[in-house]
Amino acid sequence: MAKVKRVYTFGDKKAEGNTGMKNLLGGKGANLAEMNLTGVPVPPGFTITTEVCTEYNEIGSDKVIDLLKEDVEAAIKNIENIMGSKFGSRDNPCLVSVRSGARVSMPGMMDTVLNLGMNDDAVLGLASKTGNPRFAWDSYRRFVQMYGDVVLGLKPESKEDVDPFEEIIEALKEERCLENDVDLTVDDLKLLVTKFKKAVKDKTGHDFPTDPWEQLWGAIGAVFNSWMNQRAIYYRQINNIPEEWGTAVNVQAMVFGNMGKKSGTGVAFTRDAATGENLFNGEYLIDAQGEDVVAGVRTPQQITREGSLRWAKLAGKTEEERVAKYPSLEEVMPEAYHELFNIQKKLEDHYGDMQDLEFTIQDGKLWLLQTRNGKRTGGAMVKIAMDLLKEGKIDEKTALLRQEPNKLDELLHPVFDKKALANAKVVGKGLPASPGAATGQIVFFADEADKYTNSILVRIETSPEDLEGMNIAKGILTARGGMTSHAAVVARGMGKCCVSGAGNISINYKNRTMKAGDITFKEGDWISLNGSIGEVYESKIATIDPQMGGDFGEIMELAEKYTRMDVRTNADTPKDAKVARKFGAKGIGLTRTEHMFFEGDRIKAMREMILAENEKDRRKALDKILPYQREDFEGILEAMEGYGVTIRLLDPPLHEFVPHEKENQSEMAEELGISPEEVKQIVDSLHEFNPMLGHRGCRLGNTYPEITEMQARAIIEAACNLKKKGIDAKPEIMVPLIGTVEELKMQEEIIRIVAEEVFKEKGIKVDYLVGTMIEIPRAALTADKVAEVAEFFSFGTNDLTQMTFGYSRDDAGKFLPIYLKKGILNDDPFQILDQEGVGQLVRMGTERGRAARKDLKIGICGEHGGEPSSVEFCHSVGMNYVSCSPFRVPIARLAAAQANIR
Amino acid sequence: MAKVKRVYTFGDKKAEGNTGMKNLLGGKGANLAEMNLTGVPVPPGFTITTEVCTEYNEIGSDKVIDLLKEDVEAAIKNIENIMGSKFGSRDNPCLVSVRSGARVSMPGMMDTVLNLGMNDDAVLGLASKTGNPRFAWDSYRRFVQMYGDVVLGLKPESKEDVDPFEEIIEALKEERCLENDVDLTVDDLKLLVTKFKKAVKDKTGHDFPTDPWEQLWGAIGAVFNSWMNQRAIYYRQINNIPEEWGTAVNVQAMVFGNMGKKSGTGVAFTRDAATGENLFNGEYLIDAQGEDVVAGVRTPQQITREGSLRWAKLAGKTEEERVAKYPSLEEVMPEAYHELFNIQKKLEDHYGDMQDLEFTIQDGKLWLLQTRNGKRTGGAMVKIAMDLLKEGKIDEKTALLRQEPNKLDELLHPVFDKKALANAKVVGKGLPASPGAATGQIVFFADEADKYTNSILVRIETSPEDLEGMNIAKGILTARGGMTSHAAVVARGMGKCCVSGAGNISINYKNRTMKAGDITFKEGDWISLNGSIGEVYESKIATIDPQMGGDFGEIMELAEKYTRMDVRTNADTPKDAKVARKFGAKGIGLTRTEHMFFEGDRIKAMREMILAENEKDRRKALDKILPYQREDFEGILEAMEGYGVTIRLLDPPLHEFVPHEKENQSEMAEELGISPEEVKQIVDSLHEFNPMLGHRGCRLGNTYPEITEMQARAIIEAACNLKKKGIDAKPEIMVPLIGTVEELKMQEEIIRIVAEEVFKEKGIKVDYLVGTMIEIPRAALTADKVAEVAEFFSFGTNDLTQMTFGYSRDDAGKFLPIYLKKGILNDDPFQILDQEGVGQLVRMGTERGRAARKDLKIGICGEHGGEPSSVEFCHSVGMNYVSCSPFRVPIARLAAAQANIR
Repeated sequence: MAKVKRVYTFGDKKAEGNTGMKNLLGGKGANLAEMNLTGVPVPPGFTITTEVCTEYNEIGSDKVIDLLKEDVEAAIKNIENIMGSKFGSRDNPCLVSVRSGARVSMPGMMDTVLNLGMNDDAVLGLASKTGNPRFAWDSYRRFVQMYGDVVLGLKPESKEDVDPFEEIIEALKEERCLENDVDLTVDDLKLLVTKFKKAVKDKTGHDFPTDPWEQLWGAIGAVFNSWMNQRAIYYRQINNIPEEWGTAVNVQAMVFGNMGKKSGTGVAFTRDAATGENLFNGEYLIDAQGEDVVAGVRTPQQITREGSLRWAKLAGKTEEERVAKYPSLEEVMPEAYHELFNIQKKLEDHYGDMQDLEFTIQDGKLWLLQTRNGKRTGGAMVKIAMDLLKEGKIDEKTALLRQEPNKLDELLHPVFDKKALANAKVVGKGLPASPGAATGQIVFFADEADKYTNSILVRIETSPEDLEGMNIAKGILTARGGMTSHAAVVARGMGKCCVSGAGNISINYKNRTMKAGDITFKEGDWISLNGSIGEVYESKIATIDPQMGGDFGEIMELAEKYTRMDVRTNADTPKDAKVARKFGAKGIGLTRTEHMFFEGDRIKAMREMILAENEKDRRKALDKILPYQREDFEGILEAMEGYGVTIRLLDPPLHEFVPHEKENQSEMAEELGISPEEVKQIVDSLHEFNPMLGHRGCRLGNTYPEITEMQARAIIEAACNLKKKGIDAKPEIMVPLIGTVEELKMQEEIIRIVAEEVFKEKGIKVDYLVGTMIEIPRAALTADKVAEVAEFFSFGTNDLTQMTFGYSRDDAGKFLPIYLKKGILNDDPFQILDQEGVGQLVRMGTERGRAARKDLKIGICGEHGGEPSSVEFCHSVGMNYVSCSPFRVPIARLAAAQANIR
Repeated sequence: MAKVKRVYTFGDKKAEGNTGMKNLLGGKGANLAEMNLTGVPVPPGFTITTEVCTEYNEIGSDKVIDLLKEDVEAAIKNIENIMGSKFGSRDNPCLVSVRSGARVSMPGMMDTVLNLGMNDDAVLGLASKTGNPRFAWDSYRRFVQMYGDVVLGLKPESKEDVDPFEEIIEALKEERCLENDVDLTVDDLKLLVTKFKKAVKDKTGHDFPTDPWEQLWGAIGAVFNSWMNQRAIYYRQINNIPEEWGTAVNVQAMVFGNMGKKSGTGVAFTRDAATGENLFNGEYLIDAQGEDVVAGVRTPQQITREGSLRWAKLAGKTEEERVAKYPSLEEVMPEAYHELFNIQKKLEDHYGDMQDLEFTIQDGKLWLLQTRNGKRTGGAMVKIAMDLLKEGKIDEKTALLRQEPNKLDELLHPVFDKKALANAKVVGKGLPASPGAATGQIVFFADEADKYTNSILVRIETSPEDLEGMNIAKGILTARGGMTSHAAVVARGMGKCCVSGAGNISINYKNRTMKAGDITFKEGDWISLNGSIGEVYESKIATIDPQMGGDFGEIMELAEKYTRMDVRTNADTPKDAKVARKFGAKGIGLTRTEHMFFEGDRIKAMREMILAENEKDRRKALDKILPYQREDFEGILEAMEGYGVTIRLLDPPLHEFVPHEKENQSEMAEELGISPEEVKQIVDSLHEFNPMLGHRGCRLGNTYPEITEMQARAIIEAACNLKKKGIDAKPEIMVPLIGTVEELKMQEEIIRIVAEEVFKEKGIKVDYLVGTMIEIPRAALTADKVAEVAEFFSFGTNDLTQMTFGYSRDDAGKFLPIYLKKGILNDDPFQILDQEGVGQLVRMGTERGRAARKDLKIGICGEHGGEPSSVEFCHSVGMNYVSCSPFRVPIARLAAAQANIR
C-alpha cells in the first residue's frame, strides 16, 4: 500500500498540488500551488491536507504529529533552502505564517498566525536584517499576542470581555501617558513581550514556547481544533457544510518589504478596476510592509511610469517633485517591475479575468503573495468581460456569468462626482431604498415639490397622495419605513433616488424643519442623497449622469441570446413603460391602477365614489372616472404594443384615497358640498386596524362589483379603440388578493360580461386574459382550484411574504434589523425571496396551478422580480416571466440568462 | 333478462321499496316505503327510480314515457283502489302530489306540484265532497299557478321579475279594491283560473292541459329536467354531488283534512321537544288543512286530554269552555286518537328517536303524511338520548352521536324567562358573540362597571384595558367587531353573555348615551342581551340560571368513555381553570399571560417596562412584575394540578398596554414622573400600521430577551414552589408567533438557561416542556425544522386563519358578511376551521412535525378548538388534544367522542 500523502509542498515555481485539488488542499492551498505552477514566484511553503483534519479528530494530536513529523520537517527544510534562511536562527531567521484553509472560506475558524518562529534569538536577527529594531520587537510582541490568543486560547469567548494582552498594553500606555501604540519605544515593546509571556504563564501554567518547532505543532493543532469550535460548527450548520470536509493547514515563509531601499511592497490590478480599461496599474511603497500601503500614512507611489505621470498631474506635482519623491516602480526597480509586468499578464491569461495582486520585494527579489479576481465597478465589470470575450480569452457564457447583476444598477443612475463627494459631510444614514444620487433643496410637502428646480422631498413617510410630488422631486428622504415602504417601492419604480427610514432624522412639519443629528435644516436648504448606500449629505454635491456605453448593449444582447424566461416590467405610466421597453422589457407584469387615481381632478371623482351612499351614486362617480382610466390604459397598452400588459384591478383600501388631515378634509367637504363632520365620519369609518388584511383587493370588487365593471370596461374599451387604430393591444386583467376561487370566479364573470357588452357596442373584438395575483397563502394552497378559472398567475411576493411570515413590511423596521443582526434571519425576506418558506408556496402554487391548467402563464410581480437570486429561483420553478421596476429590467434579464446557463 | 323495475308502489301498509333503497328511490321515496312497512297508514303512491332520471337524460322524454307507461298506469290504479277515488273524476276525483326526491335533499330542484289531476270536472267533485267551493276553486287556482310556474316554465328566472300569475292576481285585487287574497270570492277565483289558463296559452302557445294523464307526464318530465337546471348543477358542484345520482319522482295521493267535522289535521311529537319528557303531545284542528294549523288563525287544540287540561290551565279556560271549544283529539275522535297513539309508539321504536309527525284525518280515516326525527332543545336532546339508552332502544354510541354538540351550550348559560321575553322589544341586532342571557344597567366605561349591581358594558369596541370591567359586568355589547373581536373572545372565555358588532347602535361616550334605532338610552338605563342569538332588548328581562341535570353528567361520562383526544381549556385565571376542570378539561391549552398585566398595580410596572430607555431600566421594571406573574402561575398550575398547563409568553404588541387617551396619558406621566409629551411620543412611536403583523409574539422576546427571562423565571419558580408543597405542576412554556426555527431556538435557549438557574437556586427540579404555537403559515411550512426544537405544537388557528386568508378579524366585518351572503364563503372561517386551506397547513404542520419528532405533542388552542366540525378535523389529523374556552369544554368533549366513534 502506497503511503498516504499528507503534506504537499510548493515553492520555486514548483508545486505538488494544483488548483484542481481544492477538496484535499483547501481553496488557499490549491491556489498557492497553482500560482507556483504558473511560474510565479511565491514564498515557499506547504499544505497539510484536509484528510489529516479528519484523522486529527479521530486519533488525536500526538498520533497525528507522529504521522506528519517526517514530511513537515522535510517541507520546512525546503522552505529554508529556497529562502536561504533558518528556522529559529539568530543570524538569518526563517519565519512562517500558519493559516487554516477549508474548501470554502469559513469565518469562525482560526485565521492566521504570522511571524511564527520568532523568539529571543530570531528577534535579534530580524532587527539586524531590517535595521529596524522597533519593527522586529513589534513583530515579536504581535506574534506572542496572536499566538497567545488563537493557539493558547487566551482570547476571551465573549466580545464584551477584554483581551488580556490589550489590557497589558492599555495599562502600560496609561503609565507612560501615551495615546497611541506607535508611541511605544523599543524598550516598551521589549517590556510588553516579557509581560505577555508572563500573562501566558499565569493563564496556562506553561511557559510561552520559544522552540519554533513547538510553536509550529501548536499552531497546526490549533487550526485543526478550530474546525470543531462552536462558531465553526454553527457556521457549517447554517451553510450546510459537511463536517467531514475538514480544513487544511497552510504554512508559508514570511517575506518582508521593509528590509531597506531594495525592498518594497504593493498592490496591482491587471486592468483598471474603475473603468475597465486594459491598463496595468497599482501602487507601492519602498521599504514598507503591506499595512503601510493600506494605512495611508505615507503617500503610495504608482507602479507604472504612465500611471505616475497621470497621478502627478492630478495631484499638482511638478516632474521634478515626482521623480524625486514619487517615482514609479518602473523607474526605481526596472527589473522587478518587468518581472511583475510579465507575471500579471501571465496570471490574467491563466485565470481569464482581471487580477488583483499583492506583492513584496525583499532585498530586490519579487514575491507574489496573492492573486485573486479583482473587485471592480459595474462599468468595469461589463467592459472587462466584453473585452476578454473579444480578445478570445473567455466564451459568451463565461462573459455572462462574470456579471454581478446588481452591479448593473450603477450604470443606470446618476452618480456623485467623486471629487465633490470627498468633501461632503454625512449627516444621516438610512436604507439604500432606491439607487442613484440626488441633490436639491428641501421641501416637506409633496404638493410643493415644484417650488425649486431641484427639490428633495423629505417626509416622515410618504403615501399615495404624495405621488405627483415624488415624481417631480429629484430624490426622496423618509424618516420611517423599510426597503419596501411606499416611498421605496414607488421610488424604485420611478428610478428615482430614495433613502428611507433614516432613523436619526426628525421632521417638524409645522416649523418646516428637519433635524439630522445636531444640525437643523430648513425648507429650501440644500441636501444630497446617495440612494445606493443610504447616505444623506449636508449640502449640494455635483452629480454625473449615467453613460450607457456600447458594452452595456452588447452584454444585454448576449443575455437575450441565453435566456428562457421573459422579463417584464412593473409600470403605471406610458413613460415608465417606454423606459422599460428601452431596457428590454417584454411586456408589463404589473400595472397598478390606483396610482392613476391621484392625478388632478381624478381624485375628486374617486372620493365622490367612496363617499357615495348607494350604488347609484357610486356608479355616477365611476362614470366620471371611466374616461380617465380608459385614456391611461390606451397610453400604456400602446406603449407596450405587441406585448402582454397585466393590469391589476383596484387593490388598496379605500381609506388611502381620502384625506386624513383636517385641512384637506374641509377642502374635500367643500368640493363635495357636504359638511366636514360628515367627511370626517366617513374617513373614520374607513379606518382599519390592519389595513393590510382588510377591505382591499378583490374584496372591494366583490363588495362593490360596479368598480370592477368600470375598470373592465375601461380596459376593454381602450384595447378596442387601439385595435381600430391598428395597434395590437394585449390586456391581461388581473384580479388581486384572491384567497378562494369563488372570489375570482365572481370577478371573472363580471369582466367577461362587460367585455361582451363592449365588443357588441364597438363591433370589434380583442383578445384578453383574466387571471389573478397569488399573494394570499390560501391562494397558493388551493392553486389547483384557482387555476380552473385563472388564465394566468402572477405571484405577488411582497404580500405573500408579509402573510407567510406574518410581517407587516411597514412595521418590520422595529424587529427586522435586530433579527438580521442576531442571525435569526440571514436576509431581509422582502428583498431576497425566502425560498425555504415563501418559496414553498410559490412552488406549490406553480405545480398545482399547472396540474389543473397545463398552459397556465406564470410570473412574479413582487419586488423580488428584480433580485438576482430570486430570479434564479423563479427560473427553477419554471415561471414564464419575472417582472420588475423599469430600472431593474437589465438586472433581471442578466439574472434570467445566468439562471438558464446554470 | 329480467325487466328493469322502474316504478315502486307503496300504500295500504305495503311497499315494494324500503329505507335501505335510498340510492334507487331517493330519500323521500325510501322513507315513504318504510313508513308503509312499519304498518303506518300513508296516502298511497309510487316512486319512479333515480335510474330513470339517467335514462331520461340519455334517451329523452318520449322514449322514457314508453318505458314507464304500463307501470305508472298500474300504480295509479293502485292508488285509486286504495283511496276509492278516480283520476279526473267529477264525482270522486283522485288528486295526487308530484315531488322530486334525490338521495340528499337538494334546493334548486323542482319541489312539489300539489293537487295534480285537477280540472274543470274534478273541481266540482272536490267542491261537493268538501262542501267548500271556495276551497275547491282556490285549490284549482293554486294548481294552475304551480303547474304553470314549475312545469310549464312560466316562473321568471330572476327574482326581480314578476310571476305572471301574481301580476294577474294583483290586477284583479286592484280592480276589486281588495287588500288580501282571502277576500277574493268564489267567482273571483273562477275568473282567476280562466285568466291563468289564458296566460299559459299566451306564453306557451298551448292550452293548459286538462287531461290528468297529460298533467302527470308533464310533471314527471319537469322533475327530471330540474335535475339538470343551472341552480341544481351549481348546487351539486359546490356540494360535490355526482350528476349520475339522479333524482327519483314521488307521486302520492292527496288527502284532505277539511272534508267536514270528521276530518282534521295536526302535528305531534312522541316526546316533549322542550323538556325531553316521555310524553306524547301535539296539536290539531278539526275540518282544516295543514296550513291552518301553522297559520295561527284558529287556536289549535291539544291531541291528548292531559295536554288539553294543562293547556286550559295556562290559558285560563274553564273546563266547560275547554270541552266546548277546545276538546282534545282523544276526546273528539277517540278511535283516530288511539290509532295515532299506537302509530307514534311504533314509529319511535322503529326509528329509535323522538319523532315529529304530520297527520291528516280525512272523513274519519287517519293518514300519516310525514315522520321525522323531531327538533328539540339542548336539554331535551340530552334527556331523550339518555332515556332511550336506558329504555334499551339505542346503544351508547348512538346516544352520543345523537347529540348536536353546539346545543349543549343552552345548558350552560342563563336563559331568559320565556314569558318575560314574549313582551320584550328588540332594539338591536348584532352577532351572537358569547351565548347566554344578561340583563342590567348600561355603563359606558369599563372602570365604572361596578356602578350598578347588574351592569351591561356598552362599548364601540373593547380593549385589553377593559378586562376588569368586562369581568364585573353581566354582559357586554359592542357596536363594532366580529365573532372573534376582543370582546367576543374574552367574553366567551369568561362564559359571559356578549353581543358584538351591533351595527344599528351608535354610542356617544361624551354624552354617555347610546342610540339604537330611534331610541336613545342613557347610562343607567336597563337593557337585556341574548348572546345566543345576538339580540338586544329594550328593558329588564328576568333570567333563569342553568340547571345541570344528571343526564348532562351521564352523557359527559359516556363521551369520556369513547374519546381518544383530550380536551383542554383556554384559561387565564385559577377561577376559569377550576370552572373548566369541573366541565372535564384535562389541562390548559392556552394561558395568555398578557391579561394578567392589566390588573391593579401591575399595569404600572408594565408601562414602566415599556417606557424604559435601556435594558437596565427594563430589567428593573420586570423585577417588579416577576412576583405578580409567579403568583398568577402558582394559582393556575395549582388549579390544574396533575395536568399540563401551556403558558404562552407575552404576545400582544406593546402599544396595547399603554393608554391612548390624553387623560390617561397624563395620569401615566404623573405616575412615572415624566412629561405627558414624552408619554405621548412613546405611545405614538409604538403605533403600527398593521399591529397584527407587527412587533409582537416572540419578536418581543427576541428583541427584549429580558422579558422572556422574567416570564420563564416566574413559571419555573412557580412550579418549583408548588413542588415543594407537594403539588404536581406541569408547565409547558409556549413561544408564540414563530415563523422560523431560529426564533424558537433563541427563546428556548433563554428558557433553558433560566430554568437551570432556578433549579440551582431552589435546589429542586421540575419537568417542563418548551414548545411553540403554530400560527404563522411559514411555521407550518417548515414544521419539520421547528419540531427539531419544539417539544409540542399548539395550532393557533385564529392567527393562522388570519394570515392564510389575509383577513384581519377585526376588519373582516366590512366584507365577510357580504361574502357569506353571496356564497363566496360557506362559513365564517374564524368560526369553522377552513379545512380546504388553513386545514392543509394544519395537516402539513402535524405531519412534518411528527416526521421530525415522533412523540411531538400536538393540540389546537384557537377558537376552533370548541367548534364541533373543527374538533372532528383535529381528531382526523391526529392531534393529542383540543383546547377551548371553559364553557365550550363539554361541547368539545362530545365532539371529540363523536369524531372517534365515526
